[in-house]
Formats: sequence, C-alpha cells, structure tokens
Amino acid sequence: MSHIYNRVALIGLGLIASSMAHAMRRGNLAGQIVGHSRSIDTQKKAISLEIFDEVFGSAKEAVENADLVVLCVPVGAMGSVAKDISAYMKAGSTLTDVGSTKRAVIDSVSPHVREDVFFVPAHPVAGTEQSGPDAGFAELFDNRWCLMTPGKVEDHNLNRIEKLKLLWTSIGANVELMDPDHHDLVLAVTSHAPHLIAYTMVGVADDLRRVTDSEVVKYSAAGFRDFTRIAASDPTMWRDVFLSNKDATLEILGRFTEELFALQRAIRTGDGDYLHEYFTRTRELRRGVVEAGQDTDAPDFGRFKGR
Amino acid sequence: MSHIYNRVALIGLGLIASSMAHAMRRGNLAGQIVGHSRSIDTQKKAISLEIFDEVFGSAKEAVENADLVVLCVPVGAMGSVAKDISAYMKAGSTLTDVGSTKRAVIDSVSPHVREDVFFVPAHPVAGTEQSGPDAGFAELFDNRWCLMTPGKVEDHNLNRIEKLKLLWTSIGANVELMDPDHHDLVLAVTSHAPHLIAYTMVGVADDLRRVTDSEVVKYSAAGFRDFTRIAASDPTMWRDVFLSNKDATLEILGRFTEELFALQRAIRTGDGDYLHEYFTRTRELRRGVVEAGQDTDAPDFGRFKGR
Repeated sequence: MSHIYNRVALIGLGLIASSMAHAMRRGNLAGQIVGHSRSIDTQKKAISLEIFDEVFGSAKEAVENADLVVLCVPVGAMGSVAKDISAYMKAGSTLTDVGSTKRAVIDSVSPHVREDVFFVPAHPVAGTEQSGPDAGFAELFDNRWCLMTPGKVEDHNLNRIEKLKLLWTSIGANVELMDPDHHDLVLAVTSHAPHLIAYTMVGVADDLRRVTDSEVVKYSAAGFRDFTRIAASDPTMWRDVFLSNKDATLEILGRFTEELFALQRAIRTGDGDYLHEYFTRTRELRRGVVEAGQDTDAPDFGRFKGR
Repeated sequence: MSHIYNRVALIGLGLIASSMAHAMRRGNLAGQIVGHSRSIDTQKKAISLEIFDEVFGSAKEAVENADLVVLCVPVGAMGSVAKDISAYMKAGSTLTDVGSTKRAVIDSVSPHVREDVFFVPAHPVAGTEQSGPDAGFAELFDNRWCLMTPGKVEDHNLNRIEKLKLLWTSIGANVELMDPDHHDLVLAVTSHAPHLIAYTMVGVADDLRRVTDSEVVKYSAAGFRDFTRIAASDPTMWRDVFLSNKDATLEILGRFTEELFALQRAIRTGDGDYLHEYFTRTRELRRGVVEAGQDTDAPDFGRFKGR
C-alpha cells in the first residue's frame, strides 16, 4: 500500500503507540514514523525496537512537519501536551489521540487546537495488561474497534477524517463514529467499571493475603487470577481514566452495587431460583461476545495449551 | 505406572469427571473407569469419548465393586447421591468428591458414609467456563492444586489417604491438606466472590444492552469480555456453591463492598494519589500469580495469538 501519511508523530511511547508503529510498519502506511517520550529509558527502549525513524526527547521537535500527530499519553496529560505542541504543528495537519475517555480529552485539548489543524478524538478499544514500548505488537488492533468522536465534521474536512479512518482500518481495526458522551457511558460499562471492580477484588485479596500467606496466589486458578490480569494494568493510565470519566463510571458502579446487593440477598435468603435464572442469562451474553469475534471460544482463553 | 485403583466410579459426568477420566487414561492409573449420569444425553456423550469402560444410568450399579467412588455432582446434590449409593458401596472402598465447598459437603455426605467406607472430601482447584463431558481434557489439573479436607485421619487410614493423594498427583495436581472451614474462606476469596462479582457485572451490562443494542458486546475487548467468560460458568453448579458457602461468600462480599465504596469516594473527590497507590499494589499481586505458575505471563493470556 502507498503511504497514507508522509510523517506520523506519536507523542508518548507506551503499548498503544508502539503497537501503532508496528502495525504501520507492517502495512507500510507511513513515510516516516517518529516518536517522543520524556523518559530517557523509554526513548532507549523505543529506539531499540527499530520501528521509529527518530525518537525525540522534545515533543515540539517530534511534531514538526508531521501530517498526523497522535497523542498517546495518559488522558490527564493530554491537555498540557496539546498546549506544548500547538505552535509547532504543521499547518493543515491532523491531530488525534488514543485516550480511553473522550469528553475530558475534548475539553482539555480543543482549546489548544489551532484553526489550521484538524482534531479528531479517537479511542482504539484494545490493549493488554502490559505497558511500555516493549509491550507493543502489530496485531493488537486486528478486528478490534476504533471509536472516533469528531462531533459535526464540516464538508471541507470530510477527506481528512476519511484519511484517518483509512489509517485505522489499514492498521487492522474497524472504525465507528460516536457521540463522545455516549462513548464515555458505553466504555464505563465495558471497560472502566470492570477495571475498578477487578482492582477492588484484588485489593481485598491482597489485604487477606497477610492473614493467609500466599494462599490467594496458590489457589488463584479458580477465577481470581483473571481479575489479577486486569488489575495489573498501568496505574497512571487508569487513575486518569477514572478521574476523567467520573460521572459515567460512578453511575455504572451504582447500578453494579444495586445488583450485587440483590444477589447477596438471594444468597442470604437461599433463593436458588433467582440465582440460577441470573446465571443462565449472563451465560447467553458470553455467547454474543464470542460470536462477534471479540473473544476466543477456546475454554479458559486457550490458556491451558501453553502449559 | 501400575494401576492405583482397580475400579474407579465417577458419579456425575461433567467437565471435572471427564477430565479426571482423560487424565487417568493418560497415566494408566485405574484398571477400570466407570461413570454414572442420570441424563441419557450425557451418558451418550460420555460413551462417545471412549474413556469410560462402562456408563450407567443408575448410580447404584456404577459404585458396585468400585475401590474409589468420586462424587462429581453439584454440591447441592452430594448428600442425596451419597444416601442413594451408601448400601451398594464396596466394603473397604474410599469415597471422595470434587465439590467447590467443603463444610456443606461434609455435613451432607458424612451421615451416609458407612463404617467400612473411608470418606475424603476433596476439591481440585481447576476448571473452565465450559461444562459437560465433551469439555473435559487430560491437562486440566496439571500444576493445579487439589485440596483435601479429611479432618483427623486415624492411623489405619493413612495408607488410604496416601493412595488418593497418589492418584491426584499422578493426574497432575499438587495436593495439600486443609481445614474445611479454612478452605471455604480461602475459596470465597479466590473463586466464589470473584464469580459472583463477574456475574453481577455481566448482568448489569446485559440490562444496559437493551438500551445500547450490541455495544457492550462489540466493545467488550476493553476488559469486560474477561468477566463474560467467568459469568458463562455452569448456573447449577454455581447456584449450589453460593448457597452452600453462604457465610464466607457474604463475608468477603462485605469486605469487597467496603473497598469499592472507598475507591468510589476517591474517584468522586478526585483523590488521584489514593487510586494510583491502590493500583500499584494490585499490580504486584499479579506478579505473584505468574511467578507461582498459576497463570501465563503472555499478555492478555496469549489470547491474541489465536486470531
């Protein structure tokens, strides 16, 4: 494929930026891929991957002459980075991001977007529990979704949004446009609340570990270990997600607590029919996830094969 | 290896019984393996696996002449099955089970154990979200733990417990003896509470699905899909687990709710330091699980490789 962008600058070099660079190399989608990280250690790691044409210690240098700038920093840092690079961006270039929340990113980044720069907030719904440039791989976005929340796009910008969509589909993802507030609510359900719940359960077990030594680790294969994977996700990224999607996350957690209390009451009163019916219903939803190609149908994620 | 038991009878032919039969075949651990299921459909499926010497529609026939009888039915059914087979068991034989809770099984089974039968309650801590004999495989117990809760074992029974331990280690598991009430508390942490929480979260999402169509399915790769796997577990088995380990499960859920409220408050008040510190601590525990060989260190359970 011929290049979609001449020069792409990835600002912040974690799992997502590194995976994007891998996937752009795989498809030969960009003439040049440059990156920026403040951390010297991360710069070194990124250079050693040999997927970046240049890695800069300064964000300003990285964005110069870039046709596409992708903000890949934790959502709490998006605004200040956007401010820092604003004056140095190429006229006519496109600015996008990969943040897990969209309303907060729009509110913090938009004030720093120049008239001659086109901003498309986006969120590739993919990741692993690992972080840093070493953790990236080209297949991360294959058959995953990239949600874009550009709001109303004016006619003269339609080709620029099509170009960014083409980049993401060429990277392997499916693209959908969505209202930013709706995005934040849906992701509160499919990502933010589940993460907080997993963090909570692992925190409880960690407290009890002091009593029962390593038993929670030894016998974790009975369900708990799945929670430990999610609860191993990057602390800074997730702190920012919760703080920047406060309302939707708290709303879903409120619904969760209601349901949990109803199930606890069923256990306490011995209402087996209520439990059985509930568990039968949730089983159905799993089928939907597998049929939609969003998870493997191999038992236990196919995990046992690796032993 | 020479046979550890001449004849093993598996009562109830789900994932665990079938996996035990596969593993006993793999290691040539038993002279004969027979099974019982009340369901004709399950009997047919079990026969077609060609790992059972005989499959009976009656539990009484299955246990005749068996040196080892393994109760593999949901924990709520253990007592009545034990009562049904009691008169037909071979003198000097061993009775065991694979139930996920131990105090309730001991209380319901023990009254039906004859003087000349040795009862060892046990729980192999392994499984997948799938159920039925087709779902079984020989490697299920490899490097997992089998917890036994025999209470005080009299000297003349020591060789019988050693024999059962040898069976489980030959099947691939590690064996540990434990107090039954302690077992129920530890498993409430590592299994029962996590399952109820996953069921709850999926139930909440399922409710919201009616509003947002299939969005919770499409964007499930952001964390939620892991919960759907656990919440796809067998409804009857899990109903019984919660009803038979009521006190410990409710105690852990109480602790969970406390922690969840503290984290919700941190989100509401914007206490980023509290969140960051909490998430850093939980990340450590994951490391312990991987180091203990209880999970793969491949990112995302190695799931992406299968695409």
